[in-house]
Amino acid sequence: MKQVSMEQKISNLLAQAGTEALIITDPFNMRYLSGFSGGEGALFLSEGQRVLITDSRYTEAAGKESSFTVVEENRSHNRMEIFRECVKEACAASVAYEDQSLRCCEFDRMRAALPETLEWKPLGDLADRTRRIKTEEEIACIAKAEAIGDAAFLEILKILQPGMTELEAAAELEYQMRKAGAEGFSFDTIMASGKNSSMPHAVPSGKKLQEGDFITMDFGCTYRGYCSDMTRTVVLGEASPKQREIYNVVLKAQEAALSVIRPGMTGAEVDKVARDVIAQAGYGDCFGHGLGHSVGLFIHEEPRLSPSGLDVLEPGMTETVEPGIYVPDFGGVRIEDLVVITEDGCRNLTSSPKCLIEL
Amino acid sequence: MKQVSMEQKISNLLAQAGTEALIITDPFNMRYLSGFSGGEGALFLSEGQRVLITDSRYTEAAGKESSFTVVEENRSHNRMEIFRECVKEACAASVAYEDQSLRCCEFDRMRAALPETLEWKPLGDLADRTRRIKTEEEIACIAKAEAIGDAAFLEILKILQPGMTELEAAAELEYQMRKAGAEGFSFDTIMASGKNSSMPHAVPSGKKLQEGDFITMDFGCTYRGYCSDMTRTVVLGEASPKQREIYNVVLKAQEAALSVIRPGMTGAEVDKVARDVIAQAGYGDCFGHGLGHSVGLFIHEEPRLSPSGLDVLEPGMTETVEPGIYVPDFGGVRIEDLVVITEDGCRNLTSSPKCLIEL
Repeated sequence: MKQVSMEQKISNLLAQAGTEALIITDPFNMRYLSGFSGGEGALFLSEGQRVLITDSRYTEAAGKESSFTVVEENRSHNRMEIFRECVKEACAASVAYEDQSLRCCEFDRMRAALPETLEWKPLGDLADRTRRIKTEEEIACIAKAEAIGDAAFLEILKILQPGMTELEAAAELEYQMRKAGAEGFSFDTIMASGKNSSMPHAVPSGKKLQEGDFITMDFGCTYRGYCSDMTRTVVLGEASPKQREIYNVVLKAQEAALSVIRPGMTGAEVDKVARDVIAQAGYGDCFGHGLGHSVGLFIHEEPRLSPSGLDVLEPGMTETVEPGIYVPDFGGVRIEDLVVITEDGCRNLTSSPKCLIEL
Repeated sequence: MKQVSMEQKISNLLAQAGTEALIITDPFNMRYLSGFSGGEGALFLSEGQRVLITDSRYTEAAGKESSFTVVEENRSHNRMEIFRECVKEACAASVAYEDQSLRCCEFDRMRAALPETLEWKPLGDLADRTRRIKTEEEIACIAKAEAIGDAAFLEILKILQPGMTELEAAAELEYQMRKAGAEGFSFDTIMASGKNSSMPHAVPSGKKLQEGDFITMDFGCTYRGYCSDMTRTVVLGEASPKQREIYNVVLKAQEAALSVIRPGMTGAEVDKVARDVIAQAGYGDCFGHGLGHSVGLFIHEEPRLSPSGLDVLEPGMTETVEPGIYVPDFGGVRIEDLVVITEDGCRNLTSSPKCLIEL
């Protein structure tokens, strides 16, 4: 993969936006473009300006993390005044703003504070798109985060037992991720047992794990800001024939998708491969979500693998591959790996076993 | 405190908005008004409609949690179509939208999908305001979450020792909260030691705790969706005279604010009491953030205690009281309690000790 410098990416972004300046307010884009990880603030970018605006809670850290000019916003010098000064210095007649993350009220405030003659252009997903192809360094961080998840999964298998609540099991899993080096979690850990596992996004409850339960664990951590994501479903005790059947359909669907995913395919094409396996087994109505999503600084990035995914996959993109079957009042199975698209297929960053585990 | 039913709150909100219908998209307002905790979806409210729109990942849970009519959004019946049907059924000529949380691109999409004649009004903070005065049930959840934090703090005091990294210490603290019943964390745990403690929002690092370090722990968990928030700073080993001096100034500032906070005061008035103590001790430049914020379903709610806080406190509101002194290249101290405003003062929900702890 050709590696493009961040300076070049910023120049390209300004050119694509078609404006003289760019106001970046999305925390992930802010981090990606400037290096500042604090999340609170804004960037003002123009040909000659690389300005990072943040408040006193973060100015010291921002100065350490970013090569940008750090300007402190406070009561006597607020963000709108700083924007005005930046626009003036840039002699900008047009500014692009992040309509996909900026809130309506913030945009209204900016428009009111800046010259009426200024032309505003929605940036759409152009800044997000700069993050789509991951560099080797980024992939190394994501792989490390995924390896932490793998290590934690092996530990939790020794710990899960009947009588433990979903909340306790989630706590143990997170503790194992922390001990293995997680700096945070990419999302709220899902630990869904028995009938609860039929809800794809169940919240861990006080329900106790019981013999015969499906246990679906969907979890991820962060390493240097980058997310991991994986799901495994196990059975506590011996699997019933129906549990085994459902598990094997999901696994077959996942393996089918993993075997075909490669550059040049659209997200919809990959999604269809897994969806067809599930539909042919008679569970088409039980797989309501998309097959996967990209992962980076944010847990759910584009492009997606889904029936509506028209974007074409390219080397260096990451994708989760996570088919599921959810049967109300019975339970559900989801199996999720995280892969990087390579020149001729994919590299699977997840190494946890996928055979049906009966604890 | 007079308790108002949720139905009454929704009717009042519609009246205040001055529109025939209301589209709610903020996850916390959605949860508060409908009972649905999933966070993904939208509400459509009019005199005769209580509609909760969400996708297949959540429809089962939504039906269990909410008394609203649950409508599933999917590829063949998307959110914009459902909005169109709701607007038609309501014969609505005007709709209020949540400009404070809605993203520009989502608003653009809604405007494009709905009749051109429809009048759109920004709702401002009216929906958030319905959440300001907490009910007894809400306060009980917040108090329980804070008690979990208190229990975890007592445990972490036994665990902290030189050589442990900030990351490990943060993991232990979160594990203790989980074991004590936390269902999640209200924000990323801050565990800042030594010089790192001079950054109010430091991220836990691989730095090892050392003899003589200030250790600032700012942490919170959730219980039934409601957040807790507390901060304690301790010294590992014996405190130096300067550490002791700074600690005592912060403690004095906090106690001064706690002793005056009551209904009828503005946030700025309470903030000033603590700020004056710190300024008089010569550390005025080292306290850059506001004194506190309200806490509920979201960790940072209004009204705030800050120099610009004009809102008047009322019984049933919660507030953190968290002055700090941050000395670059030396370290910092913050002490934070969470209180509920009562008829004649406040009730402190935090019970962890505040004397200078030397471990």
